[in-house]
Amino acid sequence: MANDPKHEDLATATSHLTGEKINRFTHIHQNTSDLVKKVKLLRLLGQKTGACFQRCVGMDSLNALSIVTFEMDQKLGTEYYKRFTEYLKYVQGNDLVCCGAMTDPKGDRSLRPSQQADPDLYLRIVEQRGDGIVVRGSKVHQTGAVNSHEIIAMPTRTMQKEDKDYAVSFAVPSDAEGVIYIYGRQSCDSRKLEGVEIDLGNPRYGGQEAMIVFDDVFVPWERVFMAGESEFAWPLVNVFSSYHRQSYGGCKAGVGDVLVGAAATIAEYNGVAGASHIRDKLVEMNHLNETIYACGIACSTEGYKTPSGTYLVNILLSNICKQNVTRFPYEIVRLAEDIAGGLMATLPSEKDFKNTEIGNYINKYLKGTKEVPTESRLRMLRLIENLSMGLGAIGYQVESMHGAGSPQAQRIMIEREVNLDFKKKLAKTIAGP
Amino acid sequence: MANDPKHEDLATATSHLTGEKINRFTHIHQNTSDLVKKVKLLRLLGQKTGACFQRCVGMDSLNALSIVTFEMDQKLGTEYYKRFTEYLKYVQGNDLVCCGAMTDPKGDRSLRPSQQADPDLYLRIVEQRGDGIVVRGSKVHQTGAVNSHEIIAMPTRTMQKEDKDYAVSFAVPSDAEGVIYIYGRQSCDSRKLEGVEIDLGNPRYGGQEAMIVFDDVFVPWERVFMAGESEFAWPLVNVFSSYHRQSYGGCKAGVGDVLVGAAATIAEYNGVAGASHIRDKLVEMNHLNETIYACGIACSTEGYKTPSGTYLVNILLSNICKQNVTRFPYEIVRLAEDIAGGLMATLPSEKDFKNTEIGNYINKYLKGTKEVPTESRLRMLRLIENLSMGLGAIGYQVESMHGAGSPQAQRIMIEREVNLDFKKKLAKTIAGP
Amino acid sequence: MANDPKHEDLATATSHLTGEKINRFTHIHQNTSDLVKKVKLLRLLGQKTGACFQRCVGMDSLNALSIVTFEMDQKLGTEYYKRFTEYLKYVQGNDLVCCGAMTDPKGDRSLRPSQQADPDLYLRIVEQRGDGIVVRGSKVHQTGAVNSHEIIAMPTRTMQKEDKDYAVSFAVPSDAEGVIYIYGRQSCDSRKLEGVEIDLGNPRYGGQEAMIVFDDVFVPWERVFMAGESEFAWPLVNVFSSYHRQSYGGCKAGVGDVLVGAAATIAEYNGVAGASHIRDKLVEMNHLNETIYACGIACSTEGYKTPSGTYLVNILLSNICKQNVTRFPYEIVRLAEDIAGGLMATLPSEKDFKNTEIGNYINKYLKGTKEVPTESRLRMLRLIENLSMGLGAIGYQVESMHGAGSPQAQRIMIEREVNLDFKKKLAKTIAGP
Amino acid sequence: MANDPKHEDLATATSHLTGEKINRFTHIHQNTSDLVKKVKLLRLLGQKTGACFQRCVGMDSLNALSIVTFEMDQKLGTEYYKRFTEYLKYVQGNDLVCCGAMTDPKGDRSLRPSQQADPDLYLRIVEQRGDGIVVRGSKVHQTGAVNSHEIIAMPTRTMQKEDKDYAVSFAVPSDAEGVIYIYGRQSCDSRKLEGVEIDLGNPRYGGQEAMIVFDDVFVPWERVFMAGESEFAWPLVNVFSSYHRQSYGGCKAGVGDVLVGAAATIAEYNGVAGASHIRDKLVEMNHLNETIYACGIACSTEGYKTPSGTYLVNILLSNICKQNVTRFPYEIVRLAEDIAGGLMATLPSEKDFKNTEIGNYINKYLKGTKEVPTESRLRMLRLIENLSMGLGAIGYQVESMHGAGSPQAQRIMIEREVNLDFKKKLAKTIAGP
Repeated sequence: MANDPKHEDLATATSHLTGEKINRFTHIHQNTSDLVKKVKLLRLLGQKTGACFQRCVGMDSLNALSIVTFEMDQKLGTEYYKRFTEYLKYVQGNDLVCCGAMTDPKGDRSLRPSQQADPDLYLRIVEQRGDGIVVRGSKVHQTGAVNSHEIIAMPTRTMQKEDKDYAVSFAVPSDAEGVIYIYGRQSCDSRKLEGVEIDLGNPRYGGQEAMIVFDDVFVPWERVFMAGESEFAWPLVNVFSSYHRQSYGGCKAGVGDVLVGAAATIAEYNGVAGASHIRDKLVEMNHLNETIYACGIACSTEGYKTPSGTYLVNILLSNICKQNVTRFPYEIVRLAEDIAGGLMATLPSEKDFKNTEIGNYINKYLKGTKEVPTESRLRMLRLIENLSMGLGAIGYQVESMHGAGSPQAQRIMIEREVNLDFKKKLAKTIAGP
Repeated sequence: MANDPKHEDLATATSHLTGEKINRFTHIHQNTSDLVKKVKLLRLLGQKTGACFQRCVGMDSLNALSIVTFEMDQKLGTEYYKRFTEYLKYVQGNDLVCCGAMTDPKGDRSLRPSQQADPDLYLRIVEQRGDGIVVRGSKVHQTGAVNSHEIIAMPTRTMQKEDKDYAVSFAVPSDAEGVIYIYGRQSCDSRKLEGVEIDLGNPRYGGQEAMIVFDDVFVPWERVFMAGESEFAWPLVNVFSSYHRQSYGGCKAGVGDVLVGAAATIAEYNGVAGASHIRDKLVEMNHLNETIYACGIACSTEGYKTPSGTYLVNILLSNICKQNVTRFPYEIVRLAEDIAGGLMATLPSEKDFKNTEIGNYINKYLKGTKEVPTESRLRMLRLIENLSMGLGAIGYQVESMHGAGSPQAQRIMIEREVNLDFKKKLAKTIAGP
Repeated sequence: MANDPKHEDLATATSHLTGEKINRFTHIHQNTSDLVKKVKLLRLLGQKTGACFQRCVGMDSLNALSIVTFEMDQKLGTEYYKRFTEYLKYVQGNDLVCCGAMTDPKGDRSLRPSQQADPDLYLRIVEQRGDGIVVRGSKVHQTGAVNSHEIIAMPTRTMQKEDKDYAVSFAVPSDAEGVIYIYGRQSCDSRKLEGVEIDLGNPRYGGQEAMIVFDDVFVPWERVFMAGESEFAWPLVNVFSSYHRQSYGGCKAGVGDVLVGAAATIAEYNGVAGASHIRDKLVEMNHLNETIYACGIACSTEGYKTPSGTYLVNILLSNICKQNVTRFPYEIVRLAEDIAGGLMATLPSEKDFKNTEIGNYINKYLKGTKEVPTESRLRMLRLIENLSMGLGAIGYQVESMHGAGSPQAQRIMIEREVNLDFKKKLAKTIAGP
Repeated sequence: MANDPKHEDLATATSHLTGEKINRFTHIHQNTSDLVKKVKLLRLLGQKTGACFQRCVGMDSLNALSIVTFEMDQKLGTEYYKRFTEYLKYVQGNDLVCCGAMTDPKGDRSLRPSQQADPDLYLRIVEQRGDGIVVRGSKVHQTGAVNSHEIIAMPTRTMQKEDKDYAVSFAVPSDAEGVIYIYGRQSCDSRKLEGVEIDLGNPRYGGQEAMIVFDDVFVPWERVFMAGESEFAWPLVNVFSSYHRQSYGGCKAGVGDVLVGAAATIAEYNGVAGASHIRDKLVEMNHLNETIYACGIACSTEGYKTPSGTYLVNILLSNICKQNVTRFPYEIVRLAEDIAGGLMATLPSEKDFKNTEIGNYINKYLKGTKEVPTESRLRMLRLIENLSMGLGAIGYQVESMHGAGSPQAQRIMIEREVNLDFKKKLAKTIAGP
């Protein structure tokens, strides 16, 4: 799309470093309009793919590093921002897909990184050398890892002094020595290996997750963006998460559009598109979907300029956005399953459908309205299955829940960002002494 | 506030007609920034008053008329826009409070205006004269009517040819001959007459509703903005409603802030502010409240310029906004009642509290944490009562439900504004043939 | 009703002590059928009154005391059960209305009774004498207190050794010396003093709450059922609460029936009874209302015999019942307000309606469908107002929230009563080692 | 279990025909206690299997036929009940698993059976012979079909006179000539063929659905229970559905117990079992799960004796039960996914885990708390995956939605069963004339 003039406005941008036209996914937001365009681009891509398309995480990592490395240099006199800027030029110039690697395995979650039985349960620096650092550990749930050019690692949580080896951020090529990918096994994944198409529901698009193991990987200093500055671990997490919580206001609304469309289509194929309860459920699906989008837009237009020049979203509203994303897609799916009917879960396989003898029975008995070929109905049901319990459900549901932080993470941020004292004062002023 | 330099940016604007500084409530939106400022102004006023402050309806009427009278003139060669512009100058120059009068009594809702047993159940033109028109009928639920300078009447629904006498819009001074106000009786209203303060909950601010009867009221032509053009009844309703559904994304969020603050305060007074379930409920209240606000912002920034030059909100998103307003304030109230404890509904009266003998018992036994005077606790509970079942509840709940159109009206608009065919195409493209 | 043969089966019972026919409200449950009949009686009374009718709390107190005094005697060798039985005969023989007084003011809720700044913030024994005890303190939110014959006091929470003066239960006539009532001021209460009927919404029925002050009240030993046995405070609270949480599965379903009926009636009066969204909302109201009732029935039929012979409800399910009651009536009200239209909150007063001049306008313009007198419409709207924000709302909403314990109290009990270890074992057995 | 003395009370019953001890799944309910035991048996089996165990549908078919064939004979003078009784003895005597086959493919749902383009889209009689009937058509979504001994077919909807060939009910052995099964392809089904165990989540239990084609199947008269009596199609659907909606109050609560247990276990494995938000989510899961169960119990104890002697559930409450089942399991799953963390959807495969080289990394990095083997954690996550998006999700979610009728079917029944006129009268009596 970045090469399609029709989508140029959303899919490309002008680099603030080089003045070159670049893929927006490598762009640093220069104003709130950039933030809004990001959301619209993500919605558009969600509409086209009906899936997670994986590039926002790299974009969010780059923008977060642009803010936090700048702050680090300001405060600590380091050179991280300069290094990062050079790296960014390289990424922009080559339109590289970056995997933003944040989530550590975490082991026993009641313990801090340095308290774990196995010290490697959070990614850490095991050696500092003259030419760089050596890191060991793992990052899990890495969406799009296996189709990325670069991996950008960041810490996953607040770090204290004693955790300083864990306060580490860097970039490595995805095929760097010692980087190992273990592919996640997901609902219905093996259908991809069966040589079928209908059964996939979404035959062309989809995602995957992998866990990445860093088995003593060397990173040269020019690719290191944090190395022990534990007080900056949290700001980096916070800024990245805020961007990434905004992202979901776009992409999930786009995928939601596809699911709304699929539900409306199957209703038509079933001959019930005019039923008032069906229409009302479609309205509800749209209502929830647009609420997500509205939050994505609002946290963008209410964004602001940070000292680095990079525009950041409104943190409170991006958390509001994501919190809604942990709820509404589930209800949208529930309504889609309601509209679809039980057939979405009891449908015979594509191979049976294409088998001459069995296929005739399926073709005859699973016909909906007379204008619609049985195959079209099967395809639409499989698409709904894909998003409600198949491969697409990982992106549309589990990722909506846990991506960019689990629901409780947003609640903590909402509590912090809301000025409760101000509101208490409002109430006291009105109620009287 | 319009005279307070601190609030100048939000509370005032520059007239596009005269270049004069005017009260924003009389302003015609010239860009999306104006739309956003409107939402922020309304939130601010909600925070200051904890009540409906009644001026948005006039603002929304003026903006709606600026769009629709322009369209009428373009299409019909009439002079409504010119008339309206003259009137607007008068309103702006004198900072007049306008009551936007839309809702007719409607009688039997299964019948159209001209089918009603009593033809006056929708406001109508009973006579056209050389110098103007004579109108008869009523407008109900008129928030702020009795403290307005002007009444701006508009039709309440789609009109067909046979209903053309009902397609009428005009402005009259609120004390015009034949205009009669019948004050609504509302929950706890008579407490205002008791000479008490604490029992009011919100002793300084509040609203009222009245039904207005037009008992053969004469309106000169220069104040008539529609007179029989039935095909423009719906556009006027639609544009006005879209603006007014946006409004609620501001004012209700502001009142919500007050209720959040009141709940947080009473939790503190009760000694339970640190309890995890209380904190979580406050997070939920804030989450819902900010979701409303986010929708208000989003429908504003996604607004667009109409042929008249006036900026209109994004109609889909303003309907999304209002639909959330028909739900979330109710849940916010429920959570506030949960946090407040039963005392909010069993509290003795202010007169008992101030009675020497009885007051001692109340003072002793209704004390919360030791730092807080019993009276402060009583006041805060009465404020919560005010918003959950007292006078404030009419604005914060019933108005949230029915103001700017009942929930079903938004659902109809969501169905219309969402492009379902486009979404069906998305799904078909992804699923395959 | 207890004297009406039509309702004999539900409204009366046979005393297990005397074999006499008694009012069921004074009966001790002898089997699960008694528990079910209680729920059905409460639903019936809710249907007839549309209000809280206040006698269940006494019934629940008597049953709770019958269980716990028996246990105390078994374990401590006391004579409380014998005393209680004598008292019960007196109550049954005279069909006395008993007010079950549990909730103390509690002061700073983060402190235990004996830690409060003022030791009287929980009701306590201030003197033990040869002939009885002297108590001081207060009980708040006492529903029906001013129309009761007897007050039965019980502790409000777990007590520890150091709180033993607060572990006190007893009965006194409601006019005992030193007992003072301070009447609660509630939403719309003063309409009762205006000589009107329509404006009340529910002109014949309603409740009130009072705080009771025990200003050094003497209680003879034969009326004392606990005096210092702190380890039995919690069992008494728990058993009483379990019964009382069951009660709401009956009474609130009955009031819900009235509100469903009112919403259905006003829809008819407005001419929209056939609209699919209205019908669907009525279905939803009924669905929620019957879910409450189903929980009331289930916790009754799953009840069991205690060592005292008294049947107790299933504690887990009665907490489930009440937890639903803290949610569903609010949603039922929201839907009723949706169906009613804004008029329920903007309606002119009865006095205006009955005024000749003004009344004509109201009569003309507030007419719904032509068959229905305007007054009937006004009455129905006032009934909905009564239950959604007027006097009835205290019983139907705030009491649903906090009566028999606030929502968090039920959640604590659900956590305790559910056997999580058992469920973990189920999961482990299925998942494998 | 029917042979395990420990479960004898629930899993067996005494035949009212023969006095023999029989499997409860073949029993005709003789009292409300039988109805309650059914619910408890289903919950128990859900707890043991974490899956749909498929026998309730046969039980519900038998009970429904016992009622409706009796009514038919009473009204029409037919001999269906006698035939049915003979058949029942055979089923009871041999403890046969019966598949209750109701749902037809339905084609274009806006058309009646006889209006479809293809007359076979509803199962129908194509020939009446001296010795029996010949049927053609299909039944879809047949849970447990391939592991049943018998198929009991029933009509799926109201039939009118012109649809009388479609008003047909009968039983055939599952291997009768012309009966063809086409197996449904479901989420993650092929994992069963991979020789793995952990990846299955629930390695021992599960269900399947098939569509059954009746390719001109002959049924002898003694196995025919309806043949053209179109006015009895709806009663049979209604009675069967009522029973089957009750069933879900048991089985889904049992499966819910497993999911609650799995969520509690994974929280413990992750080291977060004590976090207040985790505990609160577990309470919510239990609350919703027990609400379902309470409705299952209530519709049973409120059951009644039909003229045939068979006890039927309370129809309103069984619809309430099922309506909650179309909602709460989805929310329970959502909460389980929240508690589980993203790993449930990004976990590597069992084969990778068991591979020496890769397995070491997985073992090291996916360890939770130190006491728990990584494999146990993997197993628990796979169980949650199974129920939220794998094979178990079909039973726990899609079946909860559509089994025993889609949500709208229950809403129609709730509307019919609730006496709205009675409730309107209640409201009118209270509000006054």
